[in-house]
Amino acid sequence: MRLTKQTNYAIRIAMYCAANPAPLSQVRDIAASYGVSELFLFKIMKVLVDAGIVETVRGRYGGLRLAKPAEEITLYDIVRATEDSFSMAECFDDGGDADCPLIDACRLNATLRKALNAFFEQLAAVSVADLVVNRQFVRNQLGLAEAI
Amino acid sequence: MRLTKQTNYAIRIAMYCAANPAPLSQVRDIAASYGVSELFLFKIMKVLVDAGIVETVRGRYGGLRLAKPAEEITLYDIVRATEDSFSMAECFDDGGDADCPLIDACRLNATLRKALNAFFEQLAAVSVADLVVNRQFVRNQLGLAEAI
Repeated sequence: MRLTKQTNYAIRIAMYCAANPAPLSQVRDIAASYGVSELFLFKIMKVLVDAGIVETVRGRYGGLRLAKPAEEITLYDIVRATEDSFSMAECFDDGGDADCPLIDACRLNATLRKALNAFFEQLAAVSVADLVVNRQFVRNQLGLAEAI
Repeated sequence: MRLTKQTNYAIRIAMYCAANPAPLSQVRDIAASYGVSELFLFKIMKVLVDAGIVETVRGRYGGLRLAKPAEEITLYDIVRATEDSFSMAECFDDGGDADCPLIDACRLNATLRKALNAFFEQLAAVSVADLVVNRQFVRNQLGLAEAI
């Protein structure tokens, strides 16, 4: 049970934008800060843009920014947008698990759903702003200069 | 985010044993009921035996049974025994994620741990006995004859 690398870096992109004192962030800078490829980040950005979490400004002085205040974007929002699937077991899959003879009698599916909801509730209680509450430290670590 | 197939069938093995009116279950019967190979189930059984969840009785009239009452085995016990890893993100890994510049400032790790604990709490509240509460239906579905 593990979040995907895509989710992991989606959260880090959002944190970067939230911590950046400049209004727009550059993908090349984010890629350099985290030591990953720009191509990888562009793929994740597309998902985040589609989910209304970040937005891009085109043009020479363009870049990337959060689409709403960091306080209003929760970890749940990001995880829902970037994880491919929350089918914890075969019997979550569309149409159910036709092979499992217990599909109609088993309480496993309901229990896992309840557990997953408890997991989500915790993620929904934490915003991107909460993640970068030590903003100055985060800026220093990411090589983000303070705006003058 | 998904439980492994191993975990899925570990739960189903425990349910089979709990529902079986006979004192011992046979791996070949469990394999036939779920339509999987005996070899696959033997691998999972070893993990369950090591975790004190099931026990085997050797010999011609041997077989498999729960090592304690079904009421005392929770889904949490099984999931902890069979899932390889609960490192939700790179920064959970042993020694941390040396590559992430935010490792010392980020609240993500703590938040994910809290969310995972909420997930586990729900699993700990449900026993194998709870999963087969419709015992007669489960028996019918698994082709387990009622003891006379």
